[in-house]
This record gives sequence, C-alpha cells and structure tokens, in this order.
Amino acid sequence: MAPDRSPALRPIGVVRSPLTDRAAAPKQGPEGGPDAWLELDDNLLPALRSIQTGDRLLLITWLHHADRDVLEVRPRGNPDNPLTGVFSTRSPDRPNPIGLHPVTVLAVDGARLLVSDLEALDGTPIVDLKAADASG
Amino acid sequence: MAPDRSPALRPIGVVRSPLTDRAAAPKQGPEGGPDAWLELDDNLLPALRSIQTGDRLLLITWLHHADRDVLEVRPRGNPDNPLTGVFSTRSPDRPNPIGLHPVTVLAVDGARLLVSDLEALDGTPIVDLKAADASG
Repeated sequence: MAPDRSPALRPIGVVRSPLTDRAAAPKQGPEGGPDAWLELDDNLLPALRSIQTGDRLLLITWLHHADRDVLEVRPRGNPDNPLTGVFSTRSPDRPNPIGLHPVTVLAVDGARLLVSDLEALDGTPIVDLKAADASG
Repeated sequence: MAPDRSPALRPIGVVRSPLTDRAAAPKQGPEGGPDAWLELDDNLLPALRSIQTGDRLLLITWLHHADRDVLEVRPRGNPDNPLTGVFSTRSPDRPNPIGLHPVTVLAVDGARLLVSDLEALDGTPIVDLKAADASG
C-alpha cells in the first residue's frame, strides 16, 4: 500500500457545543441534541462553498472519548438489554469510534456552520461532511 | 489530547469484491453494486456475534483510491453539473475519504460476511460496521 493511501485521518475542524459531559449527552441528536457550531479549517473553504442554510448534511466525527477496546455492549446502556456485538449497534464504544450525525444547517459564517440537533461533545474532532442524500 | 484519543484508524478487515476498476464501479451500491465478502479480523468475532442473515448494516470504509486534495467536483463526474464543494456531495475524492455503504447481510461465515449491493473496490479497508437503524 502506498504511503499516501494509508488510512490516516486528518481532522478538518472541531465541534463547539454546550455539551461537555458524555453522561449527560443524548444518545442520538434528534433525542434532544442542542445547536452547535462546526468550526472548520479556513483552507477548506472551497469544499464548503456550496453549503447553504437549510441543507441537510451527514456530519462525520471521531468520538474521541470512546473506549476502543469494547466489542460487546448492552444497547443504550440499559442493563435489561442483552449483550450485543458492537457492530450490530450504534454504541460510540467500538474499535474505530466514527460518529455519524444527520444535521441541518442553520447558519453559515465563513468556515463556521451552525447546525441543529447535535449530540457530539464540545471538542469532538470533525473528519467529514457529506450530502445527506446519496444521489449526489 | 491523550495519545490514545488520537484519530488513528485501525482497519478491521478488507472488502473482497469482483470490482477492481474504479472507472467501472457504480457510483452508489444500489446502482448495480455486486455481492461482496467482508473479511474481518478473527479477534473481532465478539463484535460480530449478533449479526444475522438479513440484517441491514452501514458499512464504513476507507476509500484508499481517493484523491484527498480535491475540494470541488462536478457531481457524479458529469461535466454539465456545476462545480460544487465536496462537502455538499458524495464524491469519494475529499480530505478524509470515508465511504458509507448501506448493505444487507446475505450470509455469515465466522468472521466473513457476504453482503449485497456494494460499490467498494476489492481491497478497500473496512473501518466500521453499524446498525443501519440509529435507534440502537
């Protein structure tokens, strides 16, 4: 494998959110996630130029507080749920803790985007943004 | 940031597919992607143990043939489409080329999963699997 094809993530920005405590964060954004700012690197402005207020995007993050050694969980942290392999769940604890967050853009300010319903914690590294609709 | 919180992907397996040529691959799996095997590391069997034939999963890959310097594209490679920032598209060329693939499990054989409709090329590194339904 050529060196430039190694799977080396380079964070492209950071989440700025009132959420700072994993225990208090909602499990999924639509369950009460607050509005949050996505602060992206200025040198990526050309990649952002088509984003407008109202757009629905998939935000991809690196869940930096996750435990990468966890292979089985009781879903949603509920002790009544059966022990389940993490690849059948949305647990943040998993070998590569990639977060997927459907968001709606509320405002655009240069390389900063205000988005709704985000359960990611303040300081979470951002790794990608995609059109929510896969037809693009 | 503590060293163990760095966003260092560790591939968990590889795609084995008849698709070997990016130019000939469909843009999205439901547009004619073939069945493919996901060969996962044996030491991750506990994370896979709940997966059954018929399950709908989100496969997350590292698109190792992508061009990470691309910030704007004409969507779907069509010269008639306007130049668009990659974060408003599903282009594989982007700063962190993470692939999202909705798949259905056709068969389970130990740490190997046969899935349908996958447009990823043979040899693509696998980085995560999640329940397609976010309620888990």
